[in-house]
Amino acid sequence: MIIRPPSHWFLRLFAWHGSVLPGIWFRLMLNLLMSLIAIMCLDWYETLGIKLTLAPFSLLGVSIAVFLGFRNSVCFGRYIEARMFWGNLLIACRTLQRQALAISPADAPRVTALLLAFCYSLKHQLRHSDARADLQRYLGDEAEDVLKRRSPANYIELQLSQWLAEQRRRGNLSDILYAHMDSNIHQLSQVLGGCERLASMPVPFAYGLLLHRTVYLFCTLLPFALVPDLHYMTPLVSVFISYTFLSLDTLAEELEMPFGLAKNHLPLDALCTTIEINLREMNLEQDLPDTPRPDSCYRLT
Amino acid sequence: MIIRPPSHWFLRLFAWHGSVLPGIWFRLMLNLLMSLIAIMCLDWYETLGIKLTLAPFSLLGVSIAVFLGFRNSVCFGRYIEARMFWGNLLIACRTLQRQALAISPADAPRVTALLLAFCYSLKHQLRHSDARADLQRYLGDEAEDVLKRRSPANYIELQLSQWLAEQRRRGNLSDILYAHMDSNIHQLSQVLGGCERLASMPVPFAYGLLLHRTVYLFCTLLPFALVPDLHYMTPLVSVFISYTFLSLDTLAEELEMPFGLAKNHLPLDALCTTIEINLREMNLEQDLPDTPRPDSCYRLT
Amino acid sequence: MIIRPPSHWFLRLFAWHGSVLPGIWFRLMLNLLMSLIAIMCLDWYETLGIKLTLAPFSLLGVSIAVFLGFRNSVCFGRYIEARMFWGNLLIACRTLQRQALAISPADAPRVTALLLAFCYSLKHQLRHSDARADLQRYLGDEAEDVLKRRSPANYIELQLSQWLAEQRRRGNLSDILYAHMDSNIHQLSQVLGGCERLASMPVPFAYGLLLHRTVYLFCTLLPFALVPDLHYMTPLVSVFISYTFLSLDTLAEELEMPFGLAKNHLPLDALCTTIEINLREMNLEQDLPDTPRPDSCYRLT
Amino acid sequence: MIIRPPSHWFLRLFAWHGSVLPGIWFRLMLNLLMSLIAIMCLDWYETLGIKLTLAPFSLLGVSIAVFLGFRNSVCFGRYIEARMFWGNLLIACRTLQRQALAISPADAPRVTALLLAFCYSLKHQLRHSDARADLQRYLGDEAEDVLKRRSPANYIELQLSQWLAEQRRRGNLSDILYAHMDSNIHQLSQVLGGCERLASMPVPFAYGLLLHRTVYLFCTLLPFALVPDLHYMTPLVSVFISYTFLSLDTLAEELEMPFGLAKNHLPLDALCTTIEINLREMNLEQDLPDTPRPDSCYRLT
Amino acid sequence: MIIRPPSHWFLRLFAWHGSVLPGIWFRLMLNLLMSLIAIMCLDWYETLGIKLTLAPFSLLGVSIAVFLGFRNSVCFGRYIEARMFWGNLLIACRTLQRQALAISPADAPRVTALLLAFCYSLKHQLRHSDARADLQRYLGDEAEDVLKRRSPANYIELQLSQWLAEQRRRGNLSDILYAHMDSNIHQLSQVLGGCERLASMPVPFAYGLLLHRTVYLFCTLLPFALVPDLHYMTPLVSVFISYTFLSLDTLAEELEMPFGLAKNHLPLDALCTTIEINLREMNLEQDLPDTPRPDSCYRLT
Repeated sequence: MIIRPPSHWFLRLFAWHGSVLPGIWFRLMLNLLMSLIAIMCLDWYETLGIKLTLAPFSLLGVSIAVFLGFRNSVCFGRYIEARMFWGNLLIACRTLQRQALAISPADAPRVTALLLAFCYSLKHQLRHSDARADLQRYLGDEAEDVLKRRSPANYIELQLSQWLAEQRRRGNLSDILYAHMDSNIHQLSQVLGGCERLASMPVPFAYGLLLHRTVYLFCTLLPFALVPDLHYMTPLVSVFISYTFLSLDTLAEELEMPFGLAKNHLPLDALCTTIEINLREMNLEQDLPDTPRPDSCYRLT
Repeated sequence: MIIRPPSHWFLRLFAWHGSVLPGIWFRLMLNLLMSLIAIMCLDWYETLGIKLTLAPFSLLGVSIAVFLGFRNSVCFGRYIEARMFWGNLLIACRTLQRQALAISPADAPRVTALLLAFCYSLKHQLRHSDARADLQRYLGDEAEDVLKRRSPANYIELQLSQWLAEQRRRGNLSDILYAHMDSNIHQLSQVLGGCERLASMPVPFAYGLLLHRTVYLFCTLLPFALVPDLHYMTPLVSVFISYTFLSLDTLAEELEMPFGLAKNHLPLDALCTTIEINLREMNLEQDLPDTPRPDSCYRLT
Repeated sequence: MIIRPPSHWFLRLFAWHGSVLPGIWFRLMLNLLMSLIAIMCLDWYETLGIKLTLAPFSLLGVSIAVFLGFRNSVCFGRYIEARMFWGNLLIACRTLQRQALAISPADAPRVTALLLAFCYSLKHQLRHSDARADLQRYLGDEAEDVLKRRSPANYIELQLSQWLAEQRRRGNLSDILYAHMDSNIHQLSQVLGGCERLASMPVPFAYGLLLHRTVYLFCTLLPFALVPDLHYMTPLVSVFISYTFLSLDTLAEELEMPFGLAKNHLPLDALCTTIEINLREMNLEQDLPDTPRPDSCYRLT
Repeated sequence: MIIRPPSHWFLRLFAWHGSVLPGIWFRLMLNLLMSLIAIMCLDWYETLGIKLTLAPFSLLGVSIAVFLGFRNSVCFGRYIEARMFWGNLLIACRTLQRQALAISPADAPRVTALLLAFCYSLKHQLRHSDARADLQRYLGDEAEDVLKRRSPANYIELQLSQWLAEQRRRGNLSDILYAHMDSNIHQLSQVLGGCERLASMPVPFAYGLLLHRTVYLFCTLLPFALVPDLHYMTPLVSVFISYTFLSLDTLAEELEMPFGLAKNHLPLDALCTTIEINLREMNLEQDLPDTPRPDSCYRLT
Repeated sequence: MIIRPPSHWFLRLFAWHGSVLPGIWFRLMLNLLMSLIAIMCLDWYETLGIKLTLAPFSLLGVSIAVFLGFRNSVCFGRYIEARMFWGNLLIACRTLQRQALAISPADAPRVTALLLAFCYSLKHQLRHSDARADLQRYLGDEAEDVLKRRSPANYIELQLSQWLAEQRRRGNLSDILYAHMDSNIHQLSQVLGGCERLASMPVPFAYGLLLHRTVYLFCTLLPFALVPDLHYMTPLVSVFISYTFLSLDTLAEELEMPFGLAKNHLPLDALCTTIEINLREMNLEQDLPDTPRPDSCYRLT
């Protein structure tokens, strides 16, 4: 689900939906509370034995920034890789469709149906949602057979492969063209395998845990270190620093598993519709679905 | 649109067009204003309860620098990837043209026309501009048919594929050569799919938002933290630091969507002309377009 | 062996199994002890000639953070590469199985057996465990012959290659299809060679050594530098900073050799089972193994 | 043009030719001058209203270091990519030569001539120098025809492609071998396209400009910030810091366009000679050119 | 030459052979000496006009850490790339051997001999050592002919190519299988070209020089900046910081040219032996060499 930015820069600065604020405002309020406590306790610091200065937090903050930078590039890399797989899926579908149209035009609709079933099946597998309706639209009665499998997308790919083998057996395809088209089915395999890898394999849990813990503890202790210097300005600066660190931590976690329905996740619905429009237009069909557009909240699922 | 640097180093230091200054001078003026306010308020700091020191801003500034570095490499990576796609487009066009000349020289002009139509169509799709004039120049009456499609470039590629299939059906191409040339059409597919991916998929909005907000707030508060130490030197240092951070933030945003007409965007016009010169020279045509050169302001669209 | 995170955020913060705490609590306790010693000695600092301030440790800490960031990306890169190889193994196995089913369905079970033997053999080779039981399940009497070899996985791949050559000699496969399928056997070769490379070639020992030493010495001296400023807060801050640095150091070391049985290592058992389910389902077999699930401690081997 | 380091470590430390000192000593002298001015003005600081402390420069310096690190990896990446293209050129030339020798040994000298003409033509194109002498050596009268073209290297590649097509038409090459060898000509295309991309497309001008400006201004102001603390040691420390920052900035700029004749640029002459030796040795020719060696100043063009 | 780490963690911390200490202890002693001089001079600081504080060194140290991090990833990248080439060499050799066994088993020993001669020849070329003994073992009298060439490995590859062409001419190989196997010989070409590129092309000399100079000067001046704060603790902290920076600088330099015989260089002997074992086992030979094992000092050449 992708949020499109409002176009005016002033609206952007105060955008709520697109930002990570909804996810962290509670923790920012906690931080504000800690700042107020820190200000109130300042007079009893001597008595309470609290002596915190900013210097060690400076060292710690910069170190955490370096590690957050590392974690962000890792999680963002997963997001980019996921998007790349869906881009490759579009390319492979177009190419297979193009080759089917060039070599055996009569079979193109069958290929289109199998390719679209593959795409929707992959989407539902990644989102753990029910693929029945979409599969029945493209495969009819075959859908039940597919839905019984543990890996429906792989099974659909196998059907495509069987169709190709059938063409070769009937003599419609030479071995060379069979091998040539089979290489593109292999592209589907790579997309499927790649998406499954991303979905089944998060970044080692300990990384996220480590950064959550240090970021939370850092933000909690920060007001007490700031208050001797900043006094009444503590809440402002403390919430500002916490906002920066918590946002990046939250954003990294959101991008780590990019196939869901949260904000900043991939718009798999829109991507499937785009592939559908492309393939069906190549068949010169007329009643194409609408191009996906973000809704009134700038959202695209 | 690319700005060529003036050659003399002194002119470079004060270059206005090439730099990001035109986009941020208003914000720098605001920063200067804040600095002056900070200097004037300095005497009432005690009364106003303002106590800001540089230490927490130092921590924050270094953290923001790390995150800006991350965002810059991401956005610059998109720019490089976009340029790479257009480089691959040139390579694929040359190779297809070379193969057409080697295998069936009589058809080379048709291939040239389709390839150039593909390039211009992709350019107009990426810039949301009108492709009619360019397509009519290369495709004549076919242009109308192409312009009706949702994805004209993909449709042109399909025509190229059909031409190739026609050659095979007529027996001009063996299956092997058909598969060999079809692999290069697949390259066009990858360029098209890749450019569409970049154009439809910005860096998650929340990243830019987060950095805009922190950079703006940082620059706004900075003068108040600098003024107790630097007094009258505050404006100089504050504007200097703001210039560094705002420039990088602005530059990153500009490079994020590299297909537009802003400064530092890709010179798609010049790239299309270069491809045209290359392909038509291979056909030994005489009246080639001029090599694109930057204008008097060092600009190249 | 992969630890799945508990789903509730509160449980996550205090998760023990998934974190690196079990590996470093002893060193954290040592650090606590040093902090207490530092507090106790504070009064005799003058006499003992100890004068440590935080400034040089700040410089050192940030430098170590930069180098730890570098080491983490290197070790994490190895982990990702290892996972990528196993992902490619799944893709190559599916493709070979799909091609066998398309071209010569009667032989598919033999191909399945060889592919699964290859996967299990690779797993046992990487974990230095006994492959006999698994190989006998798939290869029967041939297993003994395989087990005698220095590189059993390579030998199994050779059998697959011989089977393919036999098909070609008998005329079941044209040269084109032979070359096409042989390219996928080459994929197995690349997975095997890549895993062997990772397993036989750690990051240069001196890197880890250098970081261990500096991190340990840094954490040991830190309390003495913190105590003049923080006094009774020294243990809290010192253990916090040590936790951050030691965790990252430990995690990097764990991910460096990702084929073992430690926490955060790759779940090779589950990956092998997944491949088995996929291949046998493609043969329409019924009694498939269960999908691997994490145990009650969220662990997956 | 590459500088080989002197072998003794003492000589290395004081090496002049290999370092970037010749390019920055003037700016270092300016910096020294500013330091002296700062020392002399120190007594009038109060009067002049100059109050600069090191703290904001520390924040700025570390930020600039992060951005310089980013710019260095970008420019160094271009240098590596350029070298990689020339490495691939050597590999492609060897492979084409090897295949020509294996398939049609009588034609090998013609292939050698075309390949070497391609390499030298690419070199001269990248260095904007005159290719006439080199092309005439390999192509004889054909050279004039080539030199008339806008893209001579591409035209030579077209000749190679035509030669291959001629072989196929005469029946010397089956379609399979034609396609196989044509793939290697495609490698030449990729080298050519890649080098042209690097040469025509600098890093966005605004990046370099931004860093030049901040580095220069930073180094100019630095002495005034250092002098209150360091007094007479200001020149030493200021020149040292300036040396570090200016060197990296200069080096990045030098590596950005690696095809020229400056220090640290690629030794295209030596690379062409190496390719020539390799190809002619494969033809068993005797009078090979000498292996390129650095001159007395350790330079290699 | 690779050092295997001792297994016990306590032994590891004090490991001498694996660490970079032997290379830098002299410079660390110099640093200790400077610290002692700094302590002794402290009383005359006023008189000598020495006023050094830690703040500018903090800025400089962090900047150097960022640049060292950059240089380390560049040099480590070369090391990894070199290892990758040798991993690909193993894969290509196994695949060629596998294909030879599948297609023409009688010729397999000849292929094995040529492949092993290629590997050993490459090793000796990279290490500038004498290849005669190894080549004679595999090629017999042909060895002399090979040794006369400027690029023996390329010449051996040419022999392999000629053998393949001979098979095609005799009708043992169809054009398809010829092209298929020739692609794997191309892999050998890429390994050879890649290794030559790494060996002939160091990181630009100015990078290393710049970092050597700044690191040395930094470590030399550091004690004088530390001594006003730390007094008698100066030697401890100064040597510690110097150890960190000098080690990384030394390590980066060692990994830059990874084909030598220094510590942390690639164990080319062991890699060649591994390839030999693999290829000869595939021929079902009995008297295989022993698997390479590290010696008593954990070394592997």
